[in-house]
Amino acid sequence: MSQKPSIPKGTRDFGPLETQRRNYIFDTIKAVFAKFGYQQIETPALENLSTLLGKYGEEGDKLLFKILNSGDYLSKASESKLEAKDSNSLALEISEKGLRYDLTVPFARYVVMHQNEINFPFKRFQIQPVWRADRPQRGRYREFYQCDADVIGSKSLMNEVELVQIIDSVFTTLGINVLIKINNRKILAGMAETIGHPDKLVDITIAIDKVDKIGIENVYKEMIDKGIPQADVEKLEPFLTMKTTGSALELLADLEQKLSNSKIGLLGIDELRSVFEMLQSLEIKNKAVVDLTLARGLNYYTGAIFEVAATDVKMGSISGGGRYDDLTGIFGLNDVSGVGISFGADRIYDVLEELNAFPENSEKGTKALFVNFGKKEAIHCLSLAAKLRESGIYTEIYPDDAKLKKQMTYADKNRIEYVIMVGENEISQGKYSLKNMVTGEQQNLDIEEIIERLTK
Amino acid sequence: MSQKPSIPKGTRDFGPLETQRRNYIFDTIKAVFAKFGYQQIETPALENLSTLLGKYGEEGDKLLFKILNSGDYLSKASESKLEAKDSNSLALEISEKGLRYDLTVPFARYVVMHQNEINFPFKRFQIQPVWRADRPQRGRYREFYQCDADVIGSKSLMNEVELVQIIDSVFTTLGINVLIKINNRKILAGMAETIGHPDKLVDITIAIDKVDKIGIENVYKEMIDKGIPQADVEKLEPFLTMKTTGSALELLADLEQKLSNSKIGLLGIDELRSVFEMLQSLEIKNKAVVDLTLARGLNYYTGAIFEVAATDVKMGSISGGGRYDDLTGIFGLNDVSGVGISFGADRIYDVLEELNAFPENSEKGTKALFVNFGKKEAIHCLSLAAKLRESGIYTEIYPDDAKLKKQMTYADKNRIEYVIMVGENEISQGKYSLKNMVTGEQQNLDIEEIIERLTK
Repeated sequence: MSQKPSIPKGTRDFGPLETQRRNYIFDTIKAVFAKFGYQQIETPALENLSTLLGKYGEEGDKLLFKILNSGDYLSKASESKLEAKDSNSLALEISEKGLRYDLTVPFARYVVMHQNEINFPFKRFQIQPVWRADRPQRGRYREFYQCDADVIGSKSLMNEVELVQIIDSVFTTLGINVLIKINNRKILAGMAETIGHPDKLVDITIAIDKVDKIGIENVYKEMIDKGIPQADVEKLEPFLTMKTTGSALELLADLEQKLSNSKIGLLGIDELRSVFEMLQSLEIKNKAVVDLTLARGLNYYTGAIFEVAATDVKMGSISGGGRYDDLTGIFGLNDVSGVGISFGADRIYDVLEELNAFPENSEKGTKALFVNFGKKEAIHCLSLAAKLRESGIYTEIYPDDAKLKKQMTYADKNRIEYVIMVGENEISQGKYSLKNMVTGEQQNLDIEEIIERLTK
Repeated sequence: MSQKPSIPKGTRDFGPLETQRRNYIFDTIKAVFAKFGYQQIETPALENLSTLLGKYGEEGDKLLFKILNSGDYLSKASESKLEAKDSNSLALEISEKGLRYDLTVPFARYVVMHQNEINFPFKRFQIQPVWRADRPQRGRYREFYQCDADVIGSKSLMNEVELVQIIDSVFTTLGINVLIKINNRKILAGMAETIGHPDKLVDITIAIDKVDKIGIENVYKEMIDKGIPQADVEKLEPFLTMKTTGSALELLADLEQKLSNSKIGLLGIDELRSVFEMLQSLEIKNKAVVDLTLARGLNYYTGAIFEVAATDVKMGSISGGGRYDDLTGIFGLNDVSGVGISFGADRIYDVLEELNAFPENSEKGTKALFVNFGKKEAIHCLSLAAKLRESGIYTEIYPDDAKLKKQMTYADKNRIEYVIMVGENEISQGKYSLKNMVTGEQQNLDIEEIIERLTK
């Protein structure tokens, strides 16, 4: 019996046009990464759960897709957990593998496993899908691509500058105007220290990270709920309301006064100042600003953090990243600092669509279709089509001798620019009828003339 | 505590060089598919198990990777199955999704779901990973890529010819000499009919499919075990020992005599004859032959079947496919005939490696590295490097002011062709020292001269 097929919630099919457009985004990002010397690697979709668990917080562990062990997986499961119907703890006995949740942890795992082959500093990029058992909603999928570039094994702030250049270059190439927001975790630590609560840094970071979603008042409220006295929370106000529109270096000078008693805060300011001084010597096309309300959710960041917003479209951040001083430590390789960024292909797609900014030529399809007038004529077309393809022209022969109208509709729907008609007369004369489907113009030409016309 | 990380059995990490080389294979195949008018689509890695189960035989069902349902998956599981510890049947209650096993069934599912948007005949290609819980061994992985092209919605044998042209074009471009073996399921049916056992076609097909692995004697033995009398099995000998090295059309004429009493067999001969006649009018670079011992394992083939072997390397088939008359029928869309081929990227990789046939320029990496002599000098390099990149030159600045030797070793290991030294003197003169790492040649040039040198 047949069934009506469907695909899992939160997953998507990509048809020809969407795939072409997605490839345009991936190829653009790839080309920029390569221009800056980043090398592509690929890691498996399947990772051991021991690699993934505990790396994304308690919430993240729940969002991992777990693979049921093969064979008689129940035979090794503990009776007590089965009887108690304890789904959570049984999962770890009947499942050893999971699907990649992001590209960062697999990259850390890769670096540790391959540390003896790697030529540090290692500049790698990776463009692969990741999976999260999140509740699907508009713009949030269970299977989606990440495009990450990281440099690992170098503490130089030039890497931060380079990542800003990459962001600038990618979005300039794509035709998206962006605001590049930069902050530093050390400055956030300085703020926590200055208001007298260095131990509450994580709570403060998590709260500030939500400012775009819940507003500044609710951020304050969350901090108070976490046990920071209101009077101290209010001391954050001068930081979180600093103007980001002016000169970054002036803002940092001002901030230096406010954080003058915090060693770590001053260190963060020094780092940002170096980054902005270097950026001044470059002509980046988009604006980069210091944004003290930028916090980033992930715990492993220790230095600069980035986030990118499209300026002409209302959309969440379309790229983000930061420096982490000890990502590989979880796998036993300490003191390897790295910094990276990630591009969100799905949101970039939505932005380009909203801006109507996909280039025409990202839609590369068949250029010429030979109409099929019957077996004999079609066989004659076989070698003509081969000649066109040898000249690099994307060419099809309509496979069946269907009605002319049907074949023309096919050409039309597939946006094929030229149709070539090869009937008995044309064959005997060696001149074929070339029709431009856009202008309607029609000419009798020999095959060399057709090739010339189609390649110029 | 840290752990020594590893990856699941049968999966692989691909480092920079392997990824470049794999991309070379994928890009070559992609370019050929596009030249013939095939359009790329992508489907999700996750499919509903209801889509996958029962499509690959009993053995295939066992090899599907199943995803454990999220949340309290045990709450909905039946008590009896839990108590009985019945792994197999419980799996279907605690798991709704699985990983794609091939690209063909998801494609059939795609065609049925999107039938109203598709412009038939639909020529699609798809290059994505698939997963199988097979026992890993040399050359057999649990996660690997398939590269498939199919035409669906056309019965024309021109499609078969086109697929042979594609096979020929891909392997010619890659520099691999191949033998393209072609058979037709209708001929196999004719053989079964002629020896008096049309009902044993599946058993005969499955047995013949193993001829390369187990030898002809064991193939006969397997048929006898399946209940075909030895005397009848022996009647297959004239077919299975026909010479494939001569003219395909002569072989088919000969075969026509042998199968003169089988209507379906004669139909299969007619189909193959048309294909070979059309191929004669084309200049394909590799040899295409009729091979009556070619059977292909999959049940859904109904017409032409293909398999490709490298002639200069001992390796299993590196491409294969065939025509199926009712693939989408399993999802409720009947009478849509299709034909397709699949390229095995992993085996092609191994063949290219054995032939030492990867082109040098498939290893596209950084072209120029600016040596880092300290903060001030490096900042000067930032804008020089930006100029090089604007001219399309892949460029890096070494991020740290490490010892010169270390930086040179980095350039060497990453096969960077040019190193540019920008010290205090060079900056004041506006002439920089360009060193060719291969020849050792060193010259002082201004930035325009360097760009000219590096782009020519």
